[in-house]
Amino acid sequence: MKSTRFLMAILLTSQMATFAQQKETVGMSPWGSDDQIGALNLMSDVSRGKVLSQIISSKVYDLSVTYFVGMPSFDALGDPGYQYWLTHTPHGTVVDNPNGLGETMNHKVSYTGDAISMYTHMGTHIDALNHFGLDGKIWNGFTPEEHLGDKGWKKAGAETIPPIISRGVLIDVKASKGRLPKNYRITAHDLKDALRRQRTRLEPGDIVIIRTGQAQFYQDADHYLDNYPGISLDAVKWLVEDKGIMLLGSDNLSFEAFPPEKEDNWVPVHTYLLAERGVMFIEQMYLEELAQDMVYEFAFIAASLKLKGASGSPLRPLAIPINTK
Amino acid sequence: MKSTRFLMAILLTSQMATFAQQKETVGMSPWGSDDQIGALNLMSDVSRGKVLSQIISSKVYDLSVTYFVGMPSFDALGDPGYQYWLTHTPHGTVVDNPNGLGETMNHKVSYTGDAISMYTHMGTHIDALNHFGLDGKIWNGFTPEEHLGDKGWKKAGAETIPPIISRGVLIDVKASKGRLPKNYRITAHDLKDALRRQRTRLEPGDIVIIRTGQAQFYQDADHYLDNYPGISLDAVKWLVEDKGIMLLGSDNLSFEAFPPEKEDNWVPVHTYLLAERGVMFIEQMYLEELAQDMVYEFAFIAASLKLKGASGSPLRPLAIPINTK
Amino acid sequence: MKSTRFLMAILLTSQMATFAQQKETVGMSPWGSDDQIGALNLMSDVSRGKVLSQIISSKVYDLSVTYFVGMPSFDALGDPGYQYWLTHTPHGTVVDNPNGLGETMNHKVSYTGDAISMYTHMGTHIDALNHFGLDGKIWNGFTPEEHLGDKGWKKAGAETIPPIISRGVLIDVKASKGRLPKNYRITAHDLKDALRRQRTRLEPGDIVIIRTGQAQFYQDADHYLDNYPGISLDAVKWLVEDKGIMLLGSDNLSFEAFPPEKEDNWVPVHTYLLAERGVMFIEQMYLEELAQDMVYEFAFIAASLKLKGASGSPLRPLAIPINTK
Amino acid sequence: MKSTRFLMAILLTSQMATFAQQKETVGMSPWGSDDQIGALNLMSDVSRGKVLSQIISSKVYDLSVTYFVGMPSFDALGDPGYQYWLTHTPHGTVVDNPNGLGETMNHKVSYTGDAISMYTHMGTHIDALNHFGLDGKIWNGFTPEEHLGDKGWKKAGAETIPPIISRGVLIDVKASKGRLPKNYRITAHDLKDALRRQRTRLEPGDIVIIRTGQAQFYQDADHYLDNYPGISLDAVKWLVEDKGIMLLGSDNLSFEAFPPEKEDNWVPVHTYLLAERGVMFIEQMYLEELAQDMVYEFAFIAASLKLKGASGSPLRPLAIPINTK
Repeated sequence: MKSTRFLMAILLTSQMATFAQQKETVGMSPWGSDDQIGALNLMSDVSRGKVLSQIISSKVYDLSVTYFVGMPSFDALGDPGYQYWLTHTPHGTVVDNPNGLGETMNHKVSYTGDAISMYTHMGTHIDALNHFGLDGKIWNGFTPEEHLGDKGWKKAGAETIPPIISRGVLIDVKASKGRLPKNYRITAHDLKDALRRQRTRLEPGDIVIIRTGQAQFYQDADHYLDNYPGISLDAVKWLVEDKGIMLLGSDNLSFEAFPPEKEDNWVPVHTYLLAERGVMFIEQMYLEELAQDMVYEFAFIAASLKLKGASGSPLRPLAIPINTK
Repeated sequence: MKSTRFLMAILLTSQMATFAQQKETVGMSPWGSDDQIGALNLMSDVSRGKVLSQIISSKVYDLSVTYFVGMPSFDALGDPGYQYWLTHTPHGTVVDNPNGLGETMNHKVSYTGDAISMYTHMGTHIDALNHFGLDGKIWNGFTPEEHLGDKGWKKAGAETIPPIISRGVLIDVKASKGRLPKNYRITAHDLKDALRRQRTRLEPGDIVIIRTGQAQFYQDADHYLDNYPGISLDAVKWLVEDKGIMLLGSDNLSFEAFPPEKEDNWVPVHTYLLAERGVMFIEQMYLEELAQDMVYEFAFIAASLKLKGASGSPLRPLAIPINTK
Repeated sequence: MKSTRFLMAILLTSQMATFAQQKETVGMSPWGSDDQIGALNLMSDVSRGKVLSQIISSKVYDLSVTYFVGMPSFDALGDPGYQYWLTHTPHGTVVDNPNGLGETMNHKVSYTGDAISMYTHMGTHIDALNHFGLDGKIWNGFTPEEHLGDKGWKKAGAETIPPIISRGVLIDVKASKGRLPKNYRITAHDLKDALRRQRTRLEPGDIVIIRTGQAQFYQDADHYLDNYPGISLDAVKWLVEDKGIMLLGSDNLSFEAFPPEKEDNWVPVHTYLLAERGVMFIEQMYLEELAQDMVYEFAFIAASLKLKGASGSPLRPLAIPINTK
Repeated sequence: MKSTRFLMAILLTSQMATFAQQKETVGMSPWGSDDQIGALNLMSDVSRGKVLSQIISSKVYDLSVTYFVGMPSFDALGDPGYQYWLTHTPHGTVVDNPNGLGETMNHKVSYTGDAISMYTHMGTHIDALNHFGLDGKIWNGFTPEEHLGDKGWKKAGAETIPPIISRGVLIDVKASKGRLPKNYRITAHDLKDALRRQRTRLEPGDIVIIRTGQAQFYQDADHYLDNYPGISLDAVKWLVEDKGIMLLGSDNLSFEAFPPEKEDNWVPVHTYLLAERGVMFIEQMYLEELAQDMVYEFAFIAASLKLKGASGSPLRPLAIPINTK
């Protein structure tokens, strides 16, 4: 059964290969004209079943950061940071009597309620395929003229992202190369070195999580955001085209590093993955504990919020060690 | 090993029994003076390991509703509904040039970004133990005077809720009793009937999900919110005190029904579970598919967002069928 | 000097007359191809000077409602209602220590801060000319393709609305006709009757404020929003085309009444005024005190917030009685 | 009649003098135990009438900045910046059909709607007396225990601030002293120098607007916020205690400068004015045009939004030159 999945991965890879030499342009999905999730189609009952059966541990690694007022945020283009506020408090309810039930009731029943607001690309989150397109189209050729309303995209919105259960692999570049220089771009060579050091092998359909080490600065937003290292175009091309991976992730703000490595594209890794290849990725993960325990292969389980039409969603991925021997 | 877990459940149950006759008052945790998650302490590597090893299917049931503008919301006390807005669009980026890179760049790189705001108790979400207290205290005696700042609680906030992996049981009351009358309160008797019909047995530490059938109206907020049925105090007392369950869930707005069944407490089921017993629960679940396939026992996997200090958090729980024979 | 102003009004009126028989279409401004404020161009140093010199009273009438959580709101199409929340409180600052200055400092300096969010068309507010257009254009032919970015319109945004100081006239239809039936549309005839009863005469360039009486229900949102009376197309055409008024206002939610009086336009009064004629209007005013004191002519002074690109803005208009003899 | 007003000012001044030597503590209002507006009580029909009768010009100076995404903001303590977003656009309405009226209707009626959110102390705004207190009380002794609910203060909220019409005086310190050094604190001496240079005299009940020159950097938030000059405690004490002014204003972020001039109070000018003396002030004004035209005395007209319970409100003040000879 694995062969079917493998073939699909190859199909994706070769289909991609044919336009690799061409100019940057949105990919048309091998999974049909209505496909909205791209490479996540590689996930199947078989792949899920396999990884779940390999679980050898009941230790669960939490790969998400915490959301708090003042947390790191991409706000250079005016997007709102994370806000949290109380809508009801035990004391305030007594003063306000919002339910009209009076002081005795509101003294007895101590109510706390709250609300949040945020840019959808904050904290540990997944980018949907509509987040970046090329020349006015997104993955699979969907256009804003036809599919973008005031409440987001009718296609490829976060609500279309399925629950994700698959084999995950950590590539610990921080451990392999030591502290990365500012703005460093991790290459395919770096990934191969780290994999060799870890004695880990990639398989088609894998979820590949790359550790830069940046998550250790998460509580200090200025530090976390300051010239962080990222992943190069060369590295992701190797992962997608040679290795057929299904999903990517990392622990820095924006997966790729800035300034961009191409002059005519300010987010070439984003558009390559999302628009050209239909490959989503998870940003701002917390990987420190996984790295410390040298857990490189695991069942990766994550379920993003079904935010209709949205270009991304927060999620809290879990990793549970597996035996792949 | 199961015995340890069972003992903890009994301990919890008996400790609770001692104050069952007393007036409503916050429970002090058997897990220590700093405990912030109550009954979720029943979860352990052993319990996780057991349920993961029982997985027999690779079909994944998605138990979450979708978030959209106009979705149902408890707004009677002024809380903000779900809002979604675009912060960047392919066309708008060309007109605004927010990155200063000019028209050619912004025509080529088609950027979509968005933001959300919401009451934390919207869609499929879990209530943290600080959501409702009694007489100015929450579970385990924490007070707002000491622990409630402007950015939420220093204790029992949503960030303290661990990833949840345990055995889940669906009790399909809708299937057992047929369509429930408006404002109907499901009794312990109803639950027992449904369990008998399903031939399902509860075990200490279980996650119990009760289907009222209300989720089928979710797309029509007025219908969903209109005099929905809920769970009675009698039913939850049986589940918690006699059965030692760890976590609850249902498919209606607020788990319990309105008007409240006690005169001096407008949310007696909330305060009983959260403040007296330290038992959290998940509201507004989507249970229709699970019910249709008559899946009554499953690995329940869910990970709420770590919203610091918050009284609740959205989450997208998954169910994977298990073999318990 | 008044003659110049009068001529401009006539010019506007006659220019309008030429397209009165035609299909609904956006007007091109007689004030030039970059005009963004339409009829407010009728205001001048002369008109301001005249009305200021006529002030006979120092009593100031406040024509604005109060903003509060739960206030009336047009939310049928998903727009956010008014939200208010505390960001800092004296107690919360002590618990959180957000400034890092410690408990003694935060006990001494008792800080309260807060934030708001709202649809721009809430409470007493003015509609900018970009709020409604026809066939994809707004007043003066500006198009979204060229002028609408992600942060609003580059043309006719609320920041272009000048401070408004001019002669204001109250037409108290409620006093003249008694309580208006639900959904009633005030006609030109009703306005003439009321003016006759008041012995008030309109002049070109006037600001005309029409009282329906709805403001007395403002504290009860359900009542205020329930099938309120409004102003008919016939009435505003008379005011604009025959009387050359400069700005309109009323005390109900949306100036016009629903259901709309045309089958092929759900807001014909909005598009007539904003898109065809370049005439703004103020909604949800508080007129009860003015009416009670039978103040029909006044200096009208109002300054909306300069919200860049916005389709409207809250404002708190003032009325000061004048002697026009 | 002016004498009455003068007497009130003296009364206020002398009453204040009695506790000037004491420790910082909230003032009890000479206007009664329910007073919530402090020195604004000095405004009367007489004072309004006088200044309105002195108007000699019909030129209106707009003293407000524009609100835009990215505008300067005090966000050091986590408060939300200004956000603006579109809720309806002509194109989006066609794609979404939110009103259910179909494509033809939504093509014809081109709808633009939008929403905002912001900290209440952004742009040109007035601080309400509840914004800062001392030792857990605000002006006139109101306490959060009794008067602060979840929707703000029951006392001294922005909705209590009356429309403001009074004589305004510009003190152009920038013109008098030249460009002020970073973090410079304007002294009473500086004010006297500038007044002498301008040949302007203060009168009790005046609104005093102090120009630092900072407004010229408003479009560049980083520059505007960077170590701006402000007003010293010495200067405001002279204005309040010796001159009996009613309201203050300036063109910088926070009126006073940082770091604070007292060790045990991080906002001594705020607490002196708001909590000790009941004197409000307006921040982030735009004074460049007024200064350029050397307009030093004017009718000052401003009306803040009636935000219930809020600690401040945006407003757009106007200045109209008067003849005081």
